[in-house]
Amino acid sequence: MSAILTSIQPSSRRFNTHILYTTFGVQIVVFNASARYLNAALMMDDVSVADVVSQAGTPVYVYSLKRVLHNFRHLKRAFAPVDARIHYSVKANGNLDILRALTRAGAGMDVVSGGEIFRALRAGANPKRIVFAGVGKSRAEIKYALEQGIGWFNVENALELAYINTIAASLGIRSVRVALRFNPQVTANAHPYMATGHGAAKFGLTGQALRDILAAAEQYPHIDFAGVHIHIGSQLGDSQATLRAIEKLNKLIQPYPRIHTINLGGGLPVAYQRGEAIPSIDDFAAALTPHLKGRQVLIEPGRSIVADAGLLAAEVQYVKRQAGQTFYIVDASMTELIRPALYQAYHEIVPLTQSTKKPIIGQIVGPVCETADVLASDRALPPLRTGDKIALMTAGAYGMVMSSNYNARPRPPEVVIDADGQSWAISRRRESLDDLLRYER
Amino acid sequence: MSAILTSIQPSSRRFNTHILYTTFGVQIVVFNASARYLNAALMMDDVSVADVVSQAGTPVYVYSLKRVLHNFRHLKRAFAPVDARIHYSVKANGNLDILRALTRAGAGMDVVSGGEIFRALRAGANPKRIVFAGVGKSRAEIKYALEQGIGWFNVENALELAYINTIAASLGIRSVRVALRFNPQVTANAHPYMATGHGAAKFGLTGQALRDILAAAEQYPHIDFAGVHIHIGSQLGDSQATLRAIEKLNKLIQPYPRIHTINLGGGLPVAYQRGEAIPSIDDFAAALTPHLKGRQVLIEPGRSIVADAGLLAAEVQYVKRQAGQTFYIVDASMTELIRPALYQAYHEIVPLTQSTKKPIIGQIVGPVCETADVLASDRALPPLRTGDKIALMTAGAYGMVMSSNYNARPRPPEVVIDADGQSWAISRRRESLDDLLRYER
Repeated sequence: MSAILTSIQPSSRRFNTHILYTTFGVQIVVFNASARYLNAALMMDDVSVADVVSQAGTPVYVYSLKRVLHNFRHLKRAFAPVDARIHYSVKANGNLDILRALTRAGAGMDVVSGGEIFRALRAGANPKRIVFAGVGKSRAEIKYALEQGIGWFNVENALELAYINTIAASLGIRSVRVALRFNPQVTANAHPYMATGHGAAKFGLTGQALRDILAAAEQYPHIDFAGVHIHIGSQLGDSQATLRAIEKLNKLIQPYPRIHTINLGGGLPVAYQRGEAIPSIDDFAAALTPHLKGRQVLIEPGRSIVADAGLLAAEVQYVKRQAGQTFYIVDASMTELIRPALYQAYHEIVPLTQSTKKPIIGQIVGPVCETADVLASDRALPPLRTGDKIALMTAGAYGMVMSSNYNARPRPPEVVIDADGQSWAISRRRESLDDLLRYER
Repeated sequence: MSAILTSIQPSSRRFNTHILYTTFGVQIVVFNASARYLNAALMMDDVSVADVVSQAGTPVYVYSLKRVLHNFRHLKRAFAPVDARIHYSVKANGNLDILRALTRAGAGMDVVSGGEIFRALRAGANPKRIVFAGVGKSRAEIKYALEQGIGWFNVENALELAYINTIAASLGIRSVRVALRFNPQVTANAHPYMATGHGAAKFGLTGQALRDILAAAEQYPHIDFAGVHIHIGSQLGDSQATLRAIEKLNKLIQPYPRIHTINLGGGLPVAYQRGEAIPSIDDFAAALTPHLKGRQVLIEPGRSIVADAGLLAAEVQYVKRQAGQTFYIVDASMTELIRPALYQAYHEIVPLTQSTKKPIIGQIVGPVCETADVLASDRALPPLRTGDKIALMTAGAYGMVMSSNYNARPRPPEVVIDADGQSWAISRRRESLDDLLRYER
């Protein structure tokens, strides 16, 4: 079997897309080298997802460490031509086993809160390899980060800088490495109010604000202004926007030779839909690296490391045909995976047992008493019956981390398949009913 | 002070609206009789919210039991002309102290999951006064509900009925009271596929499906088909839609004299915006009750009981002026209150200390690294400074129950002010960093 598997690699032009592969007469629909059908059974690496489900129940998240590490190494190779360090963005998936595996593989961590610093340290991350980003760091979080010896602060405004400087002084810390966050979008348009969404404009500093801070650098004697940070957005479609931002950035920091580090943020794209073509990481990196020579480069990928390394398995509870529609009411919902309700996100859905039956159009909905609790609309699927198991694919990013106890639903377990592709364990257990009341009097 | 307070009652034409009241020279902006300014300090009943915040920190939810009970009793009075029983919808706010107070006041409970049954029972609810609703009840949940002696099942499809019948038989339970859920919307249009949103059509049974079940009633010897259930929607603007549904319902069940109970569901409206006029509960009830004579009526209000009895207090972390805008970055976010991000919901925002300064337009955003983390856009507020405290009003419903640990943020505490309006306590404590890792290996 491993001979078959090693021959299946994503093409260099298409990272993380889905191809149809036929070999030895066994049709294997490949989502990626880890998630595929083998003899009609959905596998994650060498583990049958149905086996996991029979022991861990549904709903359940299943992650492949092999795929996580594959994605990490792929990115590392792509940026090898420059002095690049990869900091995994913990907010995409904070599972401790994933953080441990990435740390052991040499990844740093990108965190956005005291809670994420805590997680990263518990997973064994070297604090010097942790970047603390975020638009609203509290003084308590800044103090905690400084006490732990966090390596980098991505700073979003002057007051934050003053807090870091003052708290560092009070703790006797001589020098704190800071990357000022540049918001290249804000000045991209003649009408700045129109150019930016209300949500997006909260991030970073305008070019002028950034220059003002650097002109007053002596006000912050405990700050080492060693870097700049940009984050263009999520799910970047092409390298051109990033290139334009890098050009602006290079121009902006030219007068400041002490700034040696460029933090490019994350936002590398992931394919959610079967057959979806996305730019390859290799092409993306190849377009950028010539403009980054001589710099130290930090990259903060999250989604592109974990999204396609995870799935959410669920069971069909009821099949309801009415109003000309077929509803599959499954035992996963917006409480486990809010992306479809919150972002109208698309997740591929497949049965754990591959079917050759003619697909019909169905609505996959959760049991939550809420019109928004739709996981997939008008989806062509082989007819499903009560008790059938399905998987929502590419659910490794922004899935479990955004889960809630809405409708008093215990949060699901997380199963992690080891890097050997064969052994697996429950990494986070399913919550119990008692857990729901744990913090109440 | 109490003399002033008792004189401030919502007018009968406007339930839960906000009026400006001046007395004794002290201007008091009244959100309702519980939430108001007194000598420029935001009060919840007789408790200064700033006092709560100074002890419990921010972000923090604060609930008024007095207001909860006021809303419950108001509704009870409004429906007094018929034999109505009020079952509080736990999914709006499952806080144990709120459930306890409502139970003691005579409310039943409307629950949608095994977890909510567990909560209601822990709060001392009489199982016979619990209605178990929900579109995707698992067999495990049905068994649990039957073992606990739950009074009513709202049933959404025939397979669910078969499960209840079979499990009741296996447990030796002779008769289970069931209300079939009627979806009056589904057949309201010539093109049923178009008439219903994908999300809404998953609920209930069409008239024909309902009649088919009743025609085959002998197949379910352990089921007592004693009721029907409708739920028109959330935030119902007028009584006309409900009246039309009741008319349809009365017609539908006329041939079945054993059906003596009509469960009207919830969906009573709440004003979120200051000055927003909404139909009064009294008018709503007065329009409906003549059509409900001789029936036992169940009502399942959630939002209208708890929404205006709660607020979410937060602290301004940073004030950021750029791109022609003013951003207030506060320490509450979409992880505490997802309604603005998920439903574009509006929550009134006020400072804990009333200000006479000229309002300016600002964006109130959270610290979460997400463009969606906007709590309020283009809001006129007196200028705020770092350290200022604010309250997001009318946050008692669908607030804490939908909270998450996204960005590894510990969930906030819930403070409950007793029915006396004076004493308060932390009802649910703030999560710690250790709590974040509680279920992981």
